Amino acid sequence: MPAVSKPADSSDPRLARRSFLGMGAALTGGLALGARPGHAEPQPPSPPADAPWSQSIGPGVVDRPYGRPADTEAGVIRRNVPWLTAGTESSISFSPLQNLHGIITPNGLFFERYHAGRPDVDPDQHRLMIHGLVERPLILTMQDIVRFPSVSRIHFIECPANGGMEWRAAQLNSLQFNHGMISCAEWTGVRLSTLLEEVGVKKEAQWAMVEGADGAHMNRSLPLNKCLDDCLVVYAQNGEALRPEQGYPLRLVVPGWEGNVSIKWLRRIKLGDKPWHSREETSKYTDLMPDGTSRGFTWLIDAKSVITFPCPEKPLGGPGLYEIRGLAWTGNGKVKRVDVSADGGVNWQTARLHEPVLSKALTKFTLPWRWDGTPALLESRVIDETGYVQPTIAQLRKSRGMNSVYHNNSIQTWQVKPDGSVFDVQLG
Amino acid sequence: MPAVSKPADSSDPRLARRSFLGMGAALTGGLALGARPGHAEPQPPSPPADAPWSQSIGPGVVDRPYGRPADTEAGVIRRNVPWLTAGTESSISFSPLQNLHGIITPNGLFFERYHAGRPDVDPDQHRLMIHGLVERPLILTMQDIVRFPSVSRIHFIECPANGGMEWRAAQLNSLQFNHGMISCAEWTGVRLSTLLEEVGVKKEAQWAMVEGADGAHMNRSLPLNKCLDDCLVVYAQNGEALRPEQGYPLRLVVPGWEGNVSIKWLRRIKLGDKPWHSREETSKYTDLMPDGTSRGFTWLIDAKSVITFPCPEKPLGGPGLYEIRGLAWTGNGKVKRVDVSADGGVNWQTARLHEPVLSKALTKFTLPWRWDGTPALLESRVIDETGYVQPTIAQLRKSRGMNSVYHNNSIQTWQVKPDGSVFDVQLG
Repeated sequence: MPAVSKPADSSDPRLARRSFLGMGAALTGGLALGARPGHAEPQPPSPPADAPWSQSIGPGVVDRPYGRPADTEAGVIRRNVPWLTAGTESSISFSPLQNLHGIITPNGLFFERYHAGRPDVDPDQHRLMIHGLVERPLILTMQDIVRFPSVSRIHFIECPANGGMEWRAAQLNSLQFNHGMISCAEWTGVRLSTLLEEVGVKKEAQWAMVEGADGAHMNRSLPLNKCLDDCLVVYAQNGEALRPEQGYPLRLVVPGWEGNVSIKWLRRIKLGDKPWHSREETSKYTDLMPDGTSRGFTWLIDAKSVITFPCPEKPLGGPGLYEIRGLAWTGNGKVKRVDVSADGGVNWQTARLHEPVLSKALTKFTLPWRWDGTPALLESRVIDETGYVQPTIAQLRKSRGMNSVYHNNSIQTWQVKPDGSVFDVQLG
Repeated sequence: MPAVSKPADSSDPRLARRSFLGMGAALTGGLALGARPGHAEPQPPSPPADAPWSQSIGPGVVDRPYGRPADTEAGVIRRNVPWLTAGTESSISFSPLQNLHGIITPNGLFFERYHAGRPDVDPDQHRLMIHGLVERPLILTMQDIVRFPSVSRIHFIECPANGGMEWRAAQLNSLQFNHGMISCAEWTGVRLSTLLEEVGVKKEAQWAMVEGADGAHMNRSLPLNKCLDDCLVVYAQNGEALRPEQGYPLRLVVPGWEGNVSIKWLRRIKLGDKPWHSREETSKYTDLMPDGTSRGFTWLIDAKSVITFPCPEKPLGGPGLYEIRGLAWTGNGKVKRVDVSADGGVNWQTARLHEPVLSKALTKFTLPWRWDGTPALLESRVIDETGYVQPTIAQLRKSRGMNSVYHNNSIQTWQVKPDGSVFDVQLG
């Protein structure tokens, strides 16, 4: 265990704030005008000379009728891990969490997961069929669906394989690749319960098979209770139509459950009296236990959190006061508390949660921290409203063994080295 | 006054929902399988044939490392009104509210307002100077600013000219052009109060001059109290770095106040003991009264609402049950209630507000409405948490006269004609 760096006392926010710059300015080029010794009064600063962009007229409105990021942000993109999958068509890309802020993931950077690539669906031709154990089977157009009573909700979607490489001890040394299979957006659509009332659920119905229009015909079984509880059939994401990568023109959102059940390019919902045991829920998305049995239908995303600054991609510039930043979430409802440790879990301090704290959505947390330049082990630990506490990886392995790669919601440890660099480590 | 269409009774949501499709399906092509007369039992439906995109493998992940909308959404863009301004460099573009959902505006469709076009600022060279009546004047780099304690908040920004063409009775017959100078995003940055604590505010300071790095050096005066209350110096919008159109790499966000004070490409904050009476707050952004005097510093965005469906761009398909949808907002805090009328303000029914209802953010409202095919006059009226009630345009004109074009927050009337088309009208 390396030397412990005590978390900063954040009881004096004013002092804390001053110190953020006091030690930082010299490192980053910030200029404290008038703080020069020998002058009783501050120097009146001279404004910096006008930059070229302040001396000219730029392009006007609707030069970009649909906007895009600044060219200098070209490195902020989704990335994949080439060795992880045979090709890119049945694969994953990771969201650059190290460059993101707040709880909304912009649509262009929302992580991707395909089973047969990205279909380009014609919304005018797209249909949703609802059949099986229903009174009035229906085939709906997009216009039909948009006409139903709408609901907008902010929810995360996480792939259960998020953290799977870490579980297998691959040292990618990256926030993006360790945790980037999670994103969060405002979804707008119709409650699945509304559509099921429309078709009339037969008494015998207990399950729904939900199926996509992609080349994989990706499908999963869902218990009817969850369908009637909070599932949404959505057509918009962060205000605009879904992106093709996210299921355009129609997807399911199953709040708080593993992402693969939130079927994209949704074309069919069939009600039945038992689960389908589809290819995706037998060959994939089951958890192999130490005794050789498989746990299926482990849908719930348990509480999880991660520190997004500092992280391997965003090291520390030198000793001083910093704001530790991170995200927490739980499929069980709301985040109740996040604790942060700088000594690998020996001492903990409660972080500040930022409003709004929404059910089954990302929650932002922060904590001021004075780094003295000695090695540190940064960790965050979330407790959700059910009282569930995010486990260590050792605790998870004790209960699950090593075979299962899904649902690694363990505490992430970032090792801070004296030069400020940050590494992904696993504590014993 | 045209014949009055009574709002639907929404006390039986189940009935209401069934009717949404009952009358809509035939119009839009939706197929009720098994509802055919002469059959005691529903017909087992045949799944539609696989579409081409269901029979092939699409492009894989990171085909688009940064995503973009579906090609079929190409018409969903910001638009300008060519006759409104001499050129596009000092002009406005309007957000396509008729195509948007929920409270978040995607970054690509956030409305634009330039005074000298869009500067392409190099974030490494960008500086924020804070000086004037301060103890320790400072010039900050972007790295300095990002290091300060961060805050994320969802707030709208509205140009006070939103509704100005309508005020002048230009019949553009468009939701986009009547109301599209408003957008809403999750902003991340540092509280301006934090930066002002850093520099130390002198006792005499009462005002701040805030200035942009664009070619117009766009600047405004702000009272210090507002700066210390809830102003934010932000670098991120909906999770990612600000877009160039929105002030990349740094802008001010002045929650609830007219958009032009939320200075983009923010480069300077100077504290003083009186306002600057800058060009933008004398030649523009003042309100000419009937007696020839000008009201200045009318920053507050009073409560306002608008029905976004139906609207001129989204007419009704035929008689039946619909969901009226809209947005409400107020610079005074939270929306408390929204009422909807279908008869030009004679009878009102309270709409449902959708969570989260956040301070100085867009709030979504909906109300089921059965349209019987007769002419109707749809209106929404918001009441905010201070008790302020959105006025009619006649009320506003009585108090202001006709000269002032800013801050038209009056009730919008949409006239629904028997063929379902929707027109912008002003009631006497």
